Amino acid sequence: MRRWNGWGDEGTYMELPDTSRAFLAELVGPGNPLADASLDSVLAKVPASRLPGHPLIVREPRDRVLHARGQSLPDWLAMREGEFGVFPDGVAYPQTAGQIRELLRFAEEQDCLLIPYGGGTSVAGHINPPAADKPVLTVSLEHMSRLLELDEESLIATFGPGANGPQVESQLRARGYTLGHFPQSWELSTLGGWVASRSSGQQSLRYGRIEQLFAGGTLETFAGSLEIPTFPASSAGPDLREMVLGSEGRFGIISTVKVRVSRLADDERFYAVFLPGWEQALQAIRELAQSRVQLSMLRLSNAIETTTQLALAGHPGQIAWLERYLKWRGAGEGKCMLTFGVTGSRAQNAASLKLARRLLKDFGGVFTGTLLGRKWADGRFRFPYLRESLWQAGYVVDTLETATDWSNVGNLLGRIETSLRDGLAAEGERVHVFTHLSHVYGEGSSIYTTYVFRPAASYAATLERWRRLKHAASQTIAENRGTISHQHGVGKDHAPWLAAEKGPLGMAALKAMAAHFDPAGRLNPGTLLQD
Amino acid sequence: MRRWNGWGDEGTYMELPDTSRAFLAELVGPGNPLADASLDSVLAKVPASRLPGHPLIVREPRDRVLHARGQSLPDWLAMREGEFGVFPDGVAYPQTAGQIRELLRFAEEQDCLLIPYGGGTSVAGHINPPAADKPVLTVSLEHMSRLLELDEESLIATFGPGANGPQVESQLRARGYTLGHFPQSWELSTLGGWVASRSSGQQSLRYGRIEQLFAGGTLETFAGSLEIPTFPASSAGPDLREMVLGSEGRFGIISTVKVRVSRLADDERFYAVFLPGWEQALQAIRELAQSRVQLSMLRLSNAIETTTQLALAGHPGQIAWLERYLKWRGAGEGKCMLTFGVTGSRAQNAASLKLARRLLKDFGGVFTGTLLGRKWADGRFRFPYLRESLWQAGYVVDTLETATDWSNVGNLLGRIETSLRDGLAAEGERVHVFTHLSHVYGEGSSIYTTYVFRPAASYAATLERWRRLKHAASQTIAENRGTISHQHGVGKDHAPWLAAEKGPLGMAALKAMAAHFDPAGRLNPGTLLQD
Repeated sequence: MRRWNGWGDEGTYMELPDTSRAFLAELVGPGNPLADASLDSVLAKVPASRLPGHPLIVREPRDRVLHARGQSLPDWLAMREGEFGVFPDGVAYPQTAGQIRELLRFAEEQDCLLIPYGGGTSVAGHINPPAADKPVLTVSLEHMSRLLELDEESLIATFGPGANGPQVESQLRARGYTLGHFPQSWELSTLGGWVASRSSGQQSLRYGRIEQLFAGGTLETFAGSLEIPTFPASSAGPDLREMVLGSEGRFGIISTVKVRVSRLADDERFYAVFLPGWEQALQAIRELAQSRVQLSMLRLSNAIETTTQLALAGHPGQIAWLERYLKWRGAGEGKCMLTFGVTGSRAQNAASLKLARRLLKDFGGVFTGTLLGRKWADGRFRFPYLRESLWQAGYVVDTLETATDWSNVGNLLGRIETSLRDGLAAEGERVHVFTHLSHVYGEGSSIYTTYVFRPAASYAATLERWRRLKHAASQTIAENRGTISHQHGVGKDHAPWLAAEKGPLGMAALKAMAAHFDPAGRLNPGTLLQD
Repeated sequence: MRRWNGWGDEGTYMELPDTSRAFLAELVGPGNPLADASLDSVLAKVPASRLPGHPLIVREPRDRVLHARGQSLPDWLAMREGEFGVFPDGVAYPQTAGQIRELLRFAEEQDCLLIPYGGGTSVAGHINPPAADKPVLTVSLEHMSRLLELDEESLIATFGPGANGPQVESQLRARGYTLGHFPQSWELSTLGGWVASRSSGQQSLRYGRIEQLFAGGTLETFAGSLEIPTFPASSAGPDLREMVLGSEGRFGIISTVKVRVSRLADDERFYAVFLPGWEQALQAIRELAQSRVQLSMLRLSNAIETTTQLALAGHPGQIAWLERYLKWRGAGEGKCMLTFGVTGSRAQNAASLKLARRLLKDFGGVFTGTLLGRKWADGRFRFPYLRESLWQAGYVVDTLETATDWSNVGNLLGRIETSLRDGLAAEGERVHVFTHLSHVYGEGSSIYTTYVFRPAASYAATLERWRRLKHAASQTIAENRGTISHQHGVGKDHAPWLAAEKGPLGMAALKAMAAHFDPAGRLNPGTLLQD
């Protein structure tokens, strides 16, 4: 059963090793747990629905609670406190494109707002209902999750928009294929959500971002259905896929998604290499990306993240042995862990591994084989569960991310970390901050920063701490040539920063497009565009 | 000096080998040359300009003649006959973004139309002035061709939009870099034109299409300047670059272009392999693309193109020897020539070559080394000059292209060839038709078809022959899941077919976007969107 007030399945819990408690206590102080509300107390707060009955719509309090919040830190605090604020007036579960169109008509007739809902994993407030005079109907696509068609020659799969990661992969793998899109939210997030929010997966280096995987499909809008046929490439004018990618539910509701899939690779391995210091490490991964060594993933932790990961790994004996070995080989204090993967035929992977090892050696890399790489691969979707464990231990954890050109990566990373590390200094609180780069391009890299701090005495004051940190980091990103999001999307939390990168004319163009598809402004108001 | 009535530099002329005349006479009948008009006779027809004087604008007949037509077949016939029809009222040569904005203001004040002009190489009528009540000002960007900035860490180069292929490459190569974008029009076409018409280069397999190379820049519009900053990737809403890519001068005039460049590779080689038949050849290149063997170009000629190329090569003795060798190795009648390239470090190229050879061998490929590959590379930009030679010999040659998913490549290719081959049967004329695939993707491939036919007794009747052929092929493409253009763009010639792939809602959205940036409809009317 899915947790109503946190991440993932109730049956999954990640125990924090004892060493990590000591480690955190030393870094930011002893934990300070806040009390959780019960589901019953929340259900009791759900007001009467403002929507009339309809066969596709459920107005039960439970459904409305479960679709009221995503997984942003403000959402987390609201769920744990039991103060959701606003609930949708109902949740619709369409099973066909025709039923989605019926819901659009219903929204017009009833003068209500619509929020398309995939996996509910947004960490930027995409699916939160606004406090509005009009009723709000959330449209969950979870009953549209089937693989509808597979063109095995062209490697195009047609899915319902509500297929989540495991549903996408299990249906494809049964026939020998993979989409290869693995965002950290993969267990819960959906294909339609990935497209609508321009998601990126951990193996984007091989498979591409969702922009490259999304080949076509259908968007149901108030102006009609936008059908986008598949072509391998086209020079016939602006690409209509860009009216769906990143539209975040503002232009319409995605009813089918066609994606480019791959045959399952014969061979896949992940390796870990330690670089002696940050500067060499940064140069090494830039070189790997720019010289087009065929890797399928690449993740570089900075020194603090490396130390943190080793400290939280929970096997102090083994780690001490590893650290002695690394030190002896030249990667001691300040070392940075780089994980990389190769995916393909055995011959391809052998060639790529050889090229990568040779290049990394030039930068002082110490190769440690597949052990830590396998550990990364095994735990790749478990990180989000850590928020629960840390919360229970009395800590708050959040992440934020951006991307920028290589010439600015070091600068921006440093400024973001500083803005967070010093963000609560006024109240004498420390923030533990660490970063990795996990999506690299010829032009630059993503920057993914994790920060841990202690809750304040109340929920309201804790939210205020987060606001201060998030504001400082977002401002830093906007002022320093970073995108406000490389992989989480805009939602409501990043919307105030969007104009900084799109400019006034770009914002006006996006608003013109929204007005074209949704003249009455019923679709997901406040998300992506503030007005 | 550039030819005023044809392709390229006057100093370059490709002699047709005698054998090719006999070959063509046998295929479509003896040549039928039509008489060319003189430049003086055309200059005499240029009417008085309807524009007032302006320091940035030249109203001389010669400039107006040289910017009146592109390189489509109708353009060619108009230029050779000397019947241009419409001339722009003036040609402006801005040197700065500020001067482009000044010209936009001028257009508003004078109530005139604007046509952005790059290299004038459009084969789809992009830059032809319409017959309009309002004066038409062509804006040539040839004086904005400099490399303005080079970020050597991020591999981002900032150029003026008017830099043509040689200007782009020479400025980059002087610093050790390349853009790697080589459309066949490369000698004359420009960076801004590539972006505006979504161009693809011969080595797109390594460097990507212009969509992947275009990182940002500025579009000057009637609603203001759209500044697009560079990010390696972003999930912050719809990508504004898509409002420039494929906009074909309808939304604004590009004033700066930022592109992703590469360091010059250590090593580059091109090889030729002959496959015994079309079916195996098609499977082989699909397999190469889908298994991600790291090649930098791939071009597969069908059997007729293979025969035609060998016949036109002009070294009958050598070719006969080659054909005997191929036949002995199993690639006789029906053989298809595949050219592929590897670009990278020596180690990368050695690995890729090994993988490619092994795979091609499984499909019966006969490897012939680098001789024919080098020949392809040396002559890669010379093909367009052949139109002149064939014209003088009394033949018309044109090309058209599309792209479609793999499961449809064989079907669509066959139908296009048939539609052209039988297109003039009613008047008893034969058409020689052959095809290659030169841009391959995991999902599908481009299809590039060349057709040769004889002029009729008059220019008008010759144009009518072309119209019939082009219409039949375009209709075939639109009805059979092909894009109306993979690399030539829409212009005016393909505009009637655009709605077939964009759909009514897509067309409405593109029109809404044009109206947003250019409310009075002054920019390049009739191109891309018919109204």
